[in-house]
Amino acid sequence: MKHVDMNCDLGESYGIYQMESDEGILPLITSANIACGFHAGDPGTMRRTVELAMEHHVAIGAHPGLPDLQGFGRRRMEITPREAYDMVVYQMGALDAFVRAQGGKMHHVKPHGALYNMAAVDASLAEAIAEAIYQVQPELYLYGLAGSAMIDAADRMGLRSVSEVFADRTYGADGMLTPRSQVGALIQHTEQSLAQVLRMVKEGLVDTTAGTSVPIKAETICIHGDGEHALTFARQIRAMLETEGITLSAIGTNG
Amino acid sequence: MKHVDMNCDLGESYGIYQMESDEGILPLITSANIACGFHAGDPGTMRRTVELAMEHHVAIGAHPGLPDLQGFGRRRMEITPREAYDMVVYQMGALDAFVRAQGGKMHHVKPHGALYNMAAVDASLAEAIAEAIYQVQPELYLYGLAGSAMIDAADRMGLRSVSEVFADRTYGADGMLTPRSQVGALIQHTEQSLAQVLRMVKEGLVDTTAGTSVPIKAETICIHGDGEHALTFARQIRAMLETEGITLSAIGTNG
Amino acid sequence: MKHVDMNCDLGESYGIYQMESDEGILPLITSANIACGFHAGDPGTMRRTVELAMEHHVAIGAHPGLPDLQGFGRRRMEITPREAYDMVVYQMGALDAFVRAQGGKMHHVKPHGALYNMAAVDASLAEAIAEAIYQVQPELYLYGLAGSAMIDAADRMGLRSVSEVFADRTYGADGMLTPRSQVGALIQHTEQSLAQVLRMVKEGLVDTTAGTSVPIKAETICIHGDGEHALTFARQIRAMLETEGITLSAIGTNG
Amino acid sequence: MKHVDMNCDLGESYGIYQMESDEGILPLITSANIACGFHAGDPGTMRRTVELAMEHHVAIGAHPGLPDLQGFGRRRMEITPREAYDMVVYQMGALDAFVRAQGGKMHHVKPHGALYNMAAVDASLAEAIAEAIYQVQPELYLYGLAGSAMIDAADRMGLRSVSEVFADRTYGADGMLTPRSQVGALIQHTEQSLAQVLRMVKEGLVDTTAGTSVPIKAETICIHGDGEHALTFARQIRAMLETEGITLSAIGTNG
Repeated sequence: MKHVDMNCDLGESYGIYQMESDEGILPLITSANIACGFHAGDPGTMRRTVELAMEHHVAIGAHPGLPDLQGFGRRRMEITPREAYDMVVYQMGALDAFVRAQGGKMHHVKPHGALYNMAAVDASLAEAIAEAIYQVQPELYLYGLAGSAMIDAADRMGLRSVSEVFADRTYGADGMLTPRSQVGALIQHTEQSLAQVLRMVKEGLVDTTAGTSVPIKAETICIHGDGEHALTFARQIRAMLETEGITLSAIGTNG
Repeated sequence: MKHVDMNCDLGESYGIYQMESDEGILPLITSANIACGFHAGDPGTMRRTVELAMEHHVAIGAHPGLPDLQGFGRRRMEITPREAYDMVVYQMGALDAFVRAQGGKMHHVKPHGALYNMAAVDASLAEAIAEAIYQVQPELYLYGLAGSAMIDAADRMGLRSVSEVFADRTYGADGMLTPRSQVGALIQHTEQSLAQVLRMVKEGLVDTTAGTSVPIKAETICIHGDGEHALTFARQIRAMLETEGITLSAIGTNG
Repeated sequence: MKHVDMNCDLGESYGIYQMESDEGILPLITSANIACGFHAGDPGTMRRTVELAMEHHVAIGAHPGLPDLQGFGRRRMEITPREAYDMVVYQMGALDAFVRAQGGKMHHVKPHGALYNMAAVDASLAEAIAEAIYQVQPELYLYGLAGSAMIDAADRMGLRSVSEVFADRTYGADGMLTPRSQVGALIQHTEQSLAQVLRMVKEGLVDTTAGTSVPIKAETICIHGDGEHALTFARQIRAMLETEGITLSAIGTNG
Repeated sequence: MKHVDMNCDLGESYGIYQMESDEGILPLITSANIACGFHAGDPGTMRRTVELAMEHHVAIGAHPGLPDLQGFGRRRMEITPREAYDMVVYQMGALDAFVRAQGGKMHHVKPHGALYNMAAVDASLAEAIAEAIYQVQPELYLYGLAGSAMIDAADRMGLRSVSEVFADRTYGADGMLTPRSQVGALIQHTEQSLAQVLRMVKEGLVDTTAGTSVPIKAETICIHGDGEHALTFARQIRAMLETEGITLSAIGTNG
């Protein structure tokens, strides 16, 4: 029987700056990536988000980012693999402490924003991140872009990985995402997004902008949680997958 | 047989800003309190300091502080107990990840600077800190000022505590430290400091500024590691204690 | 002819964290206090807010706060007068550069949050803040709590001040605000707030919680800009004042 | 008569983290670039450094950097020209306030670290920086790498620039610095450094790693201030230039 995970970035508030997304999306997803204070999140927000995720029986992951609150971790920074290692160890430890304090267990780590994008194509950064996770908690999963250097690095390390796909992004002939800077990077129509998700999950294939279709490993789907449109779309994906008999659960959990 | 611990704050560098103290003091102490990134320290510094501490077989503790790098965590801030709880959970988790990554085990938590001073007299803050430690890693020790609200809070919580004394500070008739703002807060002469340490450790008594002597629990001695004078003084304390047949070791370890 | 100023705190967004208030309140106020990056605000937000304020011909002030983004500058910190001086010089200079870049002139400085509250009662802090303003731009106004140490400090320095009153807060027998921690600190009914404003502006008197009425200097009214309720209330104050023939303008401007 | 400026980065302390360099180098240089709080420096450090620079009659410049204290502004960040503009306006304003408070006048702006290096080759960033300076204080000088996009941008804007050269770096056939990542980027021998400086200042030529010599505009020499070796080297350059009858002064000042 087929199964897939739906993950969403949560805990992105900071001090008085509140993001509204978390409460709405939690019933719809199976795993949550919680910001750890570098690109977003603060200790109080982390505690409350872990609590919410546990109430909804959602698998909890650390979502470490670059130390750039002002840029929300989206601006590339020229960091060394050692720095990537250090910032992942630090942030995953910080989140894990809140999970332990509430009697839970952390499930995975998913790098955020520019760190995710850089590590998707830079083998040294990817390896540093995989090593950080492996050395702190080798039982965790690394969530990374399907087919990317991050998945390769996890494989080499003996770290378990979960391949992530996107519903609203197009893929090129090489099976990689069309860069956002290019025309046609985003899928505009809901039907097309849903069809792409279904094909990726059921057949392990994705149609590319080159007109071909290529294999893709779709183990978790990235879901956005902000705004009514995003919630509606998440409900549609979920309904479609359930109709198709696909089980929704975080890998390695009972759903 | 008597034994006592000698602890020192380490890992206080930040980025290019390097503190020189760590290498010199490590052979002389039995436990290290490592800054966790809020008042000092950064991920790379934490990793390197944990490594150094492990090489010297020194017991490792988290040294969480207020979020005030510019003020080195020494400026009192009006925080709620909830905020104290959250910042301790976050920081102890971050440090623990580096310890785990290197195959070690964290031993204790000692709050830093203004957080330490505020929690010494504020039962709510003290309780919040003790609760944070207890919920994340109940086997850890809380290092707190001897006779303070922190020790009381740990006792009530069932958390193990270690009572800290100072070699270079005078004590009042209530067994508490003379505030630094008062004349006579600091002991100027080495001989007097050494005598005070010895009396506290061997007899469990301290002479007060009121001319009396009062009971004090001396389980760990706070040692400074910065500068040649501090190193010399640490060596003198150590030599004196060894001469007196007092074993130097972190509580609960084999030294 | 009577006139009064209506001021509001603006530019409190930070990075992706957007506050919605600025656009709505700008047509209703006569002076804006713009956050300078310590408790809120970032360089881009400051530029855009200065631009908006200039479009609405609103007098522009710097709104310096404590270096505590996570606590929004609301947590008291134990700072020295020297530190207060330095943080005010720094922040007012940063904002002034954006005003100059757009061909405008800064009009005033209003300390934010805990810095405002501390300086209202601490003469040393108040003096340090007044000195900072006086030394950088002696032509500016200091906005401070009516009757507070800040107004006194400005007077002693030869710095012009603007006495601020609150529509929704009650006053005690000493003419000072009832602390928020006490019952009855907030005025619940709009009619009562409006009546208090009118009496303060027209008669220079405020009814106190002790049943007496005392003199108060009402040169500027603090207005909130967040949410529909706040906008409605601002419109009501404005309409009332205009009906009463009171001119709305920032002091020293042509309105 | 020939003249040249000697500039040095100062005010790089942060909180308790003290850099030792400022006092020693100040008598030897003619202009100082003072850190503004983003990559180094804090308000108190800025005040004290401005004071020191004024005592030594050294021309004062703002030294704005990327918002990366942990990386000392040396890590490239993917920022937009708008973000570069905003961070330069903010930081130059902050520094200028301290200069004004002490009755001085700011003289120039020199971007720091990765911001300097990125703007040396990226015309959009260079233009944004030049525009920031021009709009806030059009009378200031922009210090930029000789022959770089920064000098070009200043020229196009009508902003005055000062071309900077390096004593201890080699130059390629295109008159640009050999990247630090390449072998031979640094000049190892003092004699060679001194000869390079002299030739650049007197003849307007530099010998390149290709064996050719190319024209270079040497209006200011970058001097390091940290450590006894740096001070000795600064004294040697200074003595040599004076012996050769070259006047040392910041451009546009009386030295």
